Amino acid sequence: MTNLLILGRSGRMGQALIEAAEADANAAVAKTHDHDENLAEAFAGVDAAIDFTVHSFTESVLAEALEKNVPLVIGTTGHSDEEKARIVEASKKLPIVFAANYSVGVNTLFYLTQKAAQILGNDRFDIEVTEMHHKHKIDSPSGTARRLLEILNDETNTTYQDDVTHGREGNIGPRPSKEIGMHTLRGGDVVGDHTVMFAADGERVELTHKASSRMTFASGAVRAAIWIQGKPAGLYDMQDVLELK
Amino acid sequence: MTNLLILGRSGRMGQALIEAAEADANAAVAKTHDHDENLAEAFAGVDAAIDFTVHSFTESVLAEALEKNVPLVIGTTGHSDEEKARIVEASKKLPIVFAANYSVGVNTLFYLTQKAAQILGNDRFDIEVTEMHHKHKIDSPSGTARRLLEILNDETNTTYQDDVTHGREGNIGPRPSKEIGMHTLRGGDVVGDHTVMFAADGERVELTHKASSRMTFASGAVRAAIWIQGKPAGLYDMQDVLELK
Amino acid sequence: MTNLLILGRSGRMGQALIEAAEADANAAVAKTHDHDENLAEAFAGVDAAIDFTVHSFTESVLAEALEKNVPLVIGTTGHSDEEKARIVEASKKLPIVFAANYSVGVNTLFYLTQKAAQILGNDRFDIEVTEMHHKHKIDSPSGTARRLLEILNDETNTTYQDDVTHGREGNIGPRPSKEIGMHTLRGGDVVGDHTVMFAADGERVELTHKASSRMTFASGAVRAAIWIQGKPAGLYDMQDVLELK
Amino acid sequence: MTNLLILGRSGRMGQALIEAAEADANAAVAKTHDHDENLAEAFAGVDAAIDFTVHSFTESVLAEALEKNVPLVIGTTGHSDEEKARIVEASKKLPIVFAANYSVGVNTLFYLTQKAAQILGNDRFDIEVTEMHHKHKIDSPSGTARRLLEILNDETNTTYQDDVTHGREGNIGPRPSKEIGMHTLRGGDVVGDHTVMFAADGERVELTHKASSRMTFASGAVRAAIWIQGKPAGLYDMQDVLELK
Repeated sequence: MTNLLILGRSGRMGQALIEAAEADANAAVAKTHDHDENLAEAFAGVDAAIDFTVHSFTESVLAEALEKNVPLVIGTTGHSDEEKARIVEASKKLPIVFAANYSVGVNTLFYLTQKAAQILGNDRFDIEVTEMHHKHKIDSPSGTARRLLEILNDETNTTYQDDVTHGREGNIGPRPSKEIGMHTLRGGDVVGDHTVMFAADGERVELTHKASSRMTFASGAVRAAIWIQGKPAGLYDMQDVLELK
Repeated sequence: MTNLLILGRSGRMGQALIEAAEADANAAVAKTHDHDENLAEAFAGVDAAIDFTVHSFTESVLAEALEKNVPLVIGTTGHSDEEKARIVEASKKLPIVFAANYSVGVNTLFYLTQKAAQILGNDRFDIEVTEMHHKHKIDSPSGTARRLLEILNDETNTTYQDDVTHGREGNIGPRPSKEIGMHTLRGGDVVGDHTVMFAADGERVELTHKASSRMTFASGAVRAAIWIQGKPAGLYDMQDVLELK
Repeated sequence: MTNLLILGRSGRMGQALIEAAEADANAAVAKTHDHDENLAEAFAGVDAAIDFTVHSFTESVLAEALEKNVPLVIGTTGHSDEEKARIVEASKKLPIVFAANYSVGVNTLFYLTQKAAQILGNDRFDIEVTEMHHKHKIDSPSGTARRLLEILNDETNTTYQDDVTHGREGNIGPRPSKEIGMHTLRGGDVVGDHTVMFAADGERVELTHKASSRMTFASGAVRAAIWIQGKPAGLYDMQDVLELK
Repeated sequence: MTNLLILGRSGRMGQALIEAAEADANAAVAKTHDHDENLAEAFAGVDAAIDFTVHSFTESVLAEALEKNVPLVIGTTGHSDEEKARIVEASKKLPIVFAANYSVGVNTLFYLTQKAAQILGNDRFDIEVTEMHHKHKIDSPSGTARRLLEILNDETNTTYQDDVTHGREGNIGPRPSKEIGMHTLRGGDVVGDHTVMFAADGERVELTHKASSRMTFASGAVRAAIWIQGKPAGLYDMQDVLELK
């Protein structure tokens, strides 16, 4: 049983973390903390702490975690170079998980996509990627889709610049085998769907991830916090937590 | 029970028609015909004839059908204006089904897409269309997808020119509600998949057709031949056969 | 523009209704009401009212709506026979929408399923239904799936008792054409997915609805409130609102 | 370039093998063989041979392959124990691939399912499997689905007997986390679809394989024949060919 400190109790992500921790049989919410409360007291007697508040708070959190020797899971983003350097420095004395995406499923999709691309290649199999997000999303394709394309490019000797196509229209001719089709759907309030498709004569393999709530990120962070207990000092990401390296 | 004459016995489509007719409890293959055989004899005593051979053969087929008063299902394409005129002329004395696509499923998708667009509209629902075909297909999007877009444009006061987008990349901004996303996937030997998606806050409605063989066209033609028995002279299409008008 | 009164402001459904009304270009939130506030004042000067609070509140709501001649959308459930009788009585003087499910998408799926079953039948097409809900759902199949089966039974001369099969295992033999396969998936926190599949030789038609939040019910209720303005007194359901009758 | 001998030229599978070999840039059809032709001559000068004819022919094939030192890919099934023993014996002097299923995609699905189950487990994720085959298939679930269940059982400490459920109906109560739902769809002429789904709060991971023709098995066999060139004597399966061990 891992006794957790959840920071940012009143925020939407803090609430999700508390719910995720309570739902996990291997974790317990020992303490929660909100702004203006005593941070030192919060860190007393816990096995690990999860911080998804705001990057400017990281310095204070690192100081207390080092003081009490409490392993950290950091989910904030947008750190300055100086703030990042402090995390790296702290990780020499403390085990810290620091990842951009804590979803177990998305990290699994990354891993399975790499394996599938290694096995199937792009000689006999044609690779197509689709993603769908809500209508308000302003960039395309999504960051997760871009990461999938990076993985596919690495494994198939292709590049985003030369081989990824966004939309086909008109007299396009037969499909080049190195081409990777990227299809970005937008609509409604879809949280995030991603599919990688490998299509050959006679068969298709499809790998799909569907996110429906921020609980997915909360659950991944709780899993990271359980995992980090007892680990040596160091900087880890979700691939380490999931033992996918 | 409809006793059928299947023309073009030895061709791939002729074989499919025979198989489809034998599988249909309401039809029987009374006669088959192949090039160099006697056409007049073939037409004797049948309830309806199906011709998927070649447009240049249509004139001879029409002559015999008129002579024996046998309703016709014509599945050949590429007729000259003169050949088309002869079909129209014959249809004044004979019931004839003449359609570009005999798939019951595709015609059903057309119908359901129209109904769904009328009910859901594009105010609260965002419309996206995807299609996938084999890697050898040289045009994009498919003819079926273009027909789906026509239906959607008609029902949502949008146009192919102004509102259909093929591929999104970069800083695209929030999705305009009138936009229709068209996504053309290519790969393997996929016969033809089409999906029309209506996505709103909190829900999605998706209509999908998947073709896996030419049997789908053969079965539709057999259904048309059963339907046409006893109909008054006239020119019909699959919307008539399926009573979707 | 329809000026709405939303009852039950502080409840989860009340909040969703306010959000849905604000998102609809044809509606405005003119008034909101919460318990212990003056109901007569709330009904003053609005075009329609939406009540998703609790069935025991219906009597008070009906009285004020009749007094001010404000059309009603009632989304509460579990009414006693006496409470239902009062709704029916009130609907002789007032237009009232009273439906068990306000999702536009689910009602559309019902309608399209009926149409597809009429067109495709179960002679050449084999019908299979799948639904997926969260792991906590204790009944199976879902109420929405049961309604889909009713529609399919009505259109294909089959019955739930004799023709619907729940799970296949072992040496089952070839599939009877009248059989309808019902597949109930459970897992995670899935709000509700439903698919009706028609599979024939060479092709498949699939109709799918995916719910992701209660906003779908809120949006449908707002749509009903906009629609009811200016309608004659009477009792209506979502099929009326969507003009699917 | 691997110069292949394809046995059983006039059979349906022989034709598929020839088509697959011709489509593969790393293989060439050097020789083909049909019954009543000289087998010794056929084996002369080729790099590998593929046999999908009939198990009773295996003995003759093994004799010639040993004589000419030509690696073998054996796709026949239903061997007697004696015939199997001969294959094992021959594999001491000759590299032989002998597998029940040559589909690259299905073997990849097996591999990815194992990896996904190891990563995701059945604690937070609920596992559901669906398969769909044509209406004539008399057993349920499919052999491929059974293999998927074996893999899932091995990785999640569950058993087919105790934890796999086939169909849910009635008041089933909340889903036990160890349960694996198995859903067998039947309809039309579907060659074979399989999906393994892992559903948790907030996210789903889905792995899907769709077969559309016997070409998938032919392509896998050609891949095996290319792979086996230069390998040491031994008995291999598709997991070896795909380097998934």
